[in-house]
Amino acid sequence: MEIENAYITLPQGFIANGVHAGLKPNGNPDLALIASDRPAHVAGVYTSNLVKGHSLTRSISIIKSRDTVRGIVINSGNANACVGEKGESDATIMAESVAKELGADPSEILTASTGVIGSRLPLEKITSSIPGLVKNASSSEECGHLAERAIMTTDTQPKEVAATVSIFGKEITIAAIAKGSGMIHPNLATMISVFTTDANISQDVLQSMISDNVKDTYNRVSVDGDTSVCDMVVILANGASETPEITKDSEEYNVFKEAFHALCFDLAKMIASDGEGASKLVEVEVLGAKTANDAYLCVLAICRSPLCKTAIFGQDANCGRFITALGYSGADIDPDKINMSLCGLPVYQNGVALPFDEEIAKEKLSQHDILITIELNDGEYNDRMWTCDFTYDYVKINASYRS
Amino acid sequence: MEIENAYITLPQGFIANGVHAGLKPNGNPDLALIASDRPAHVAGVYTSNLVKGHSLTRSISIIKSRDTVRGIVINSGNANACVGEKGESDATIMAESVAKELGADPSEILTASTGVIGSRLPLEKITSSIPGLVKNASSSEECGHLAERAIMTTDTQPKEVAATVSIFGKEITIAAIAKGSGMIHPNLATMISVFTTDANISQDVLQSMISDNVKDTYNRVSVDGDTSVCDMVVILANGASETPEITKDSEEYNVFKEAFHALCFDLAKMIASDGEGASKLVEVEVLGAKTANDAYLCVLAICRSPLCKTAIFGQDANCGRFITALGYSGADIDPDKINMSLCGLPVYQNGVALPFDEEIAKEKLSQHDILITIELNDGEYNDRMWTCDFTYDYVKINASYRS
Repeated sequence: MEIENAYITLPQGFIANGVHAGLKPNGNPDLALIASDRPAHVAGVYTSNLVKGHSLTRSISIIKSRDTVRGIVINSGNANACVGEKGESDATIMAESVAKELGADPSEILTASTGVIGSRLPLEKITSSIPGLVKNASSSEECGHLAERAIMTTDTQPKEVAATVSIFGKEITIAAIAKGSGMIHPNLATMISVFTTDANISQDVLQSMISDNVKDTYNRVSVDGDTSVCDMVVILANGASETPEITKDSEEYNVFKEAFHALCFDLAKMIASDGEGASKLVEVEVLGAKTANDAYLCVLAICRSPLCKTAIFGQDANCGRFITALGYSGADIDPDKINMSLCGLPVYQNGVALPFDEEIAKEKLSQHDILITIELNDGEYNDRMWTCDFTYDYVKINASYRS
Repeated sequence: MEIENAYITLPQGFIANGVHAGLKPNGNPDLALIASDRPAHVAGVYTSNLVKGHSLTRSISIIKSRDTVRGIVINSGNANACVGEKGESDATIMAESVAKELGADPSEILTASTGVIGSRLPLEKITSSIPGLVKNASSSEECGHLAERAIMTTDTQPKEVAATVSIFGKEITIAAIAKGSGMIHPNLATMISVFTTDANISQDVLQSMISDNVKDTYNRVSVDGDTSVCDMVVILANGASETPEITKDSEEYNVFKEAFHALCFDLAKMIASDGEGASKLVEVEVLGAKTANDAYLCVLAICRSPLCKTAIFGQDANCGRFITALGYSGADIDPDKINMSLCGLPVYQNGVALPFDEEIAKEKLSQHDILITIELNDGEYNDRMWTCDFTYDYVKINASYRS
């Protein structure tokens, strides 16, 4: 059951906080902590960008070498990336400061970082803020929301979800936060997102679940075709519900996984909808492809196409642009079999543009949620991806991001 | 020797014209003819988009089945694409009308078309304009320029180039026109471009020359990552210079090819520079890649990245975005060996962002021509591609293209 007022500390045994350490010029929170009162099993997926941020690299190596962690410290406003060895030691120092306050080992503290790439972290500002960050952390709603606020970059909306499921006759909670909202594209992992749960579940099972579940959720979001060097999705499971262990392929696992998947799904849509400069959420579904990869290439081409995305912004039913994107997608398709509809209005059939009422099309495209349906009529594979429209504000945000 | 005031009828034996048939609402020329007074050897390269416009498909099949043509008729303002069998017959009718006026066979007249995809051509407007188009065609400078004006879509500048070379002791002329300026991306052919020459050269030699020469010119331009369904580059060689035949791998061939390549090079840069909404011409060079494909993937990723292109628009030396694009490009690179400079200013060395003077960076990026140099220090392969910046005007042009 999804929870309406969601925050990251809803699962038992978790505390969180967010403070302004001085990285964001606007005074918003920019340093977040999420921690468990006991060791939590941990699993994650990461960007496949060859260039990886120093804080991320450190977390990857921790998750490889140990089953449990105590928490994660995340800064926004300045990505710890592309600054060389200093970046590695800066991440370590951040973890050490948090570990000291928390009474944990530094290797139990994950690090993540997001913001402008290529500037060294203002470490003094961060380390001097950490004692307060940790001391005032709590399981309160306020602290939970603050942690989300502190990881946001160009996001205009916080992204917090949670659900409860009944397992072994007891209530288990999963919560998650995420930040978008630019430099986002699939198959290279995602954005920064943290899940907490009080379920009792091993690292291996968590890892397999998270790897499976990002495929049709986080990995089906494109904002601009660019993929960050700092992306990660991690889950911490601390077992505070004191239920028996959820083992792979059990009935309990399926219940848990379904709830987890629903949260991934919701966050993925939130990220697309709040893409940089977005005025619309666009869902592209492709039906009837020859292979799964053909279906994927088709949704990917449309979601990446500036021409399709500016047409949506302009509320212009320019179907030729969508068909063009399918044609160069690399997918094995038969152009003469393609049907297409925009928000349910048929605009293309058997490879030929249909006449349609421009007023009706305009009205359909004036909605916030846009559904583009492509029928390839060439096989049994489907796919679906979310993106947003391409607007003046995208250009505005990104032409002046550093200033 | 390049000619300053270039137009398509400079080579001997060619006539051209451009008229307003009523397809462009603004009254600009939208119907072009380029014709030779005698059969001209013909060769071409085409979009690799699986979806192909009807006028293009017809031209491809003509060039496959015969060595020579008499000319080409091109309309802008409405692409003849994605409208089914009517589109095929519309192209044929256009060619028949031109052939009749010209005293040629319809199969000697190529067809091309550009504009909004998915609306049937207003055939009546076109066929009623063709007699005047052909009758008033001439080799004059005015008629030559009119033909270029008539193929332009969102281009803000005409793109006309010409050169003379001395072969067999005689002067031979090559001229070309091209139109951009959106839906442009490499490796799928290019945009619409027509070359004329009075050289005496066979179809096979022309074909091999044009296929070779687009690789590092037309196929190294990206405006937006989208690739049209109507793209073609054709060359007509009518032998009117009455020189001996230029055979493959001869000294004369090399001279001719070099001049042809220089024209392709110039047009490719013009197309990037006049990309939709562009305020800057951006050249990306990648040096020292492990393989040719790695070098290509790197230039491609940067030229396609909305984040890199909005940074250039914002005159923001945000080197992290460029390094990020290299990281997800798919190229086999070592992030720790990367150097980068912007217009000669070093901003990144051995995988670490360098401190630089923001004022100097801003000044360099305020220039119109931007050079981004990436040294991978990992091998011997280089590549180079042109793009433009990503601006408010790109969004404006493409949010309202049909209206």
